[in-house]
Amino acid sequence: MHQQIIDLALKEAKQAFLEKEIPVGAVLFKTKSHEILCSAHNLSEQKKNPLLHAEMLVLEKGFRALQKKTLEGYSLFVSLEPCSMCASALSLARLDRVYFAAYDPKTGGVEQGCCVFNQATTHHKPEVYGGLCEKEFQTLLTSFFDKLRGKTDES
Amino acid sequence: MHQQIIDLALKEAKQAFLEKEIPVGAVLFKTKSHEILCSAHNLSEQKKNPLLHAEMLVLEKGFRALQKKTLEGYSLFVSLEPCSMCASALSLARLDRVYFAAYDPKTGGVEQGCCVFNQATTHHKPEVYGGLCEKEFQTLLTSFFDKLRGKTDES
Repeated sequence: MHQQIIDLALKEAKQAFLEKEIPVGAVLFKTKSHEILCSAHNLSEQKKNPLLHAEMLVLEKGFRALQKKTLEGYSLFVSLEPCSMCASALSLARLDRVYFAAYDPKTGGVEQGCCVFNQATTHHKPEVYGGLCEKEFQTLLTSFFDKLRGKTDES
Repeated sequence: MHQQIIDLALKEAKQAFLEKEIPVGAVLFKTKSHEILCSAHNLSEQKKNPLLHAEMLVLEKGFRALQKKTLEGYSLFVSLEPCSMCASALSLARLDRVYFAAYDPKTGGVEQGCCVFNQATTHHKPEVYGGLCEKEFQTLLTSFFDKLRGKTDES
C-alpha cells in the first residue's frame, strides 16, 4: 500500500475528528498504479444522515467522476472495517480489493456479523486485506470516543 | 397497509419500468397514521450508480425532509425484498417496520444471504412483514426481465 494513500486516509479521518464525526477516512485508487481517484470522510453528524459513511461518500464521488456502472480496476483503503451496508455497497460497485485498518467487532460487516463477502447472495467478492496500519487509526478512534465519553460525563 | 401506499409504490415501480430501471418502488410513511412522507424508485441505470436503489433514495429524501438523525416513527413499504446494503441502511435509519412485496432469493438480504436483521451486529431490528401484494409486484418484475432477455436475444 502506497504511503500517499494511507496519509490521505489519515488526513480525512483527522478532518472528520475535527468536525466531531467518527474519524473514518476512505480513499479510492487505481488497483494497479495506485493512482488516487478521490477520498472522503464521515458526514453523518453534520448532514443528520446516518448513512453518510466515508465509504458510501467515496463511492458516490467515484461513480460521479467515472460515469461508469462499476468501479472495476479500482480499490479502496478505509480506516475502519466497513459495516454491512458499506461492505454490500463495495460489492455492488465491483471493487477489486478492499483494504481496511482497524477491525470493528461491534458493527463490522466483513469479518463479523453479516460477513457480507462470505454470503452466496453476494455476487462479487473483492479481495480483502484487514488490519493495515491498525494501531495508527485505532488510536485516533479511541481518542475520539474517550473525548466523546468525557463530554457526555460533563454534560 | 393502506391502499394509497401500495398504489404509490406501484406507481413508482411502473415509472422505473418505463425508465428501463428494475421496477422497484419504495414509500416512507408515518407508522401510526400511515401519512406518506416521500417515495422513490431505482435510478441505478440512469445515474450509472449501482447503489441508487429505491430504498436508499427514499431514505435520503426522508432524512432531508425531517432533518433528524433517525427515522423513528416511520416505516417503509418496498416492492422487492431489500438487498443487504438496503436492509443495513434501514436498520441504521432506525425505521419501525419494513414491509416488502416480492421475495428476492438471488440478492435479498432480509430472509436470505446476510439475513441482516438476525445478526448480533445489527443493533436496531425493525419489525419485518414480507410477501404483501407479492403477486402484483412480482408480475411487474417478471415482465421487466422477460423484456430485458427478449432485447438481449434480439441484439
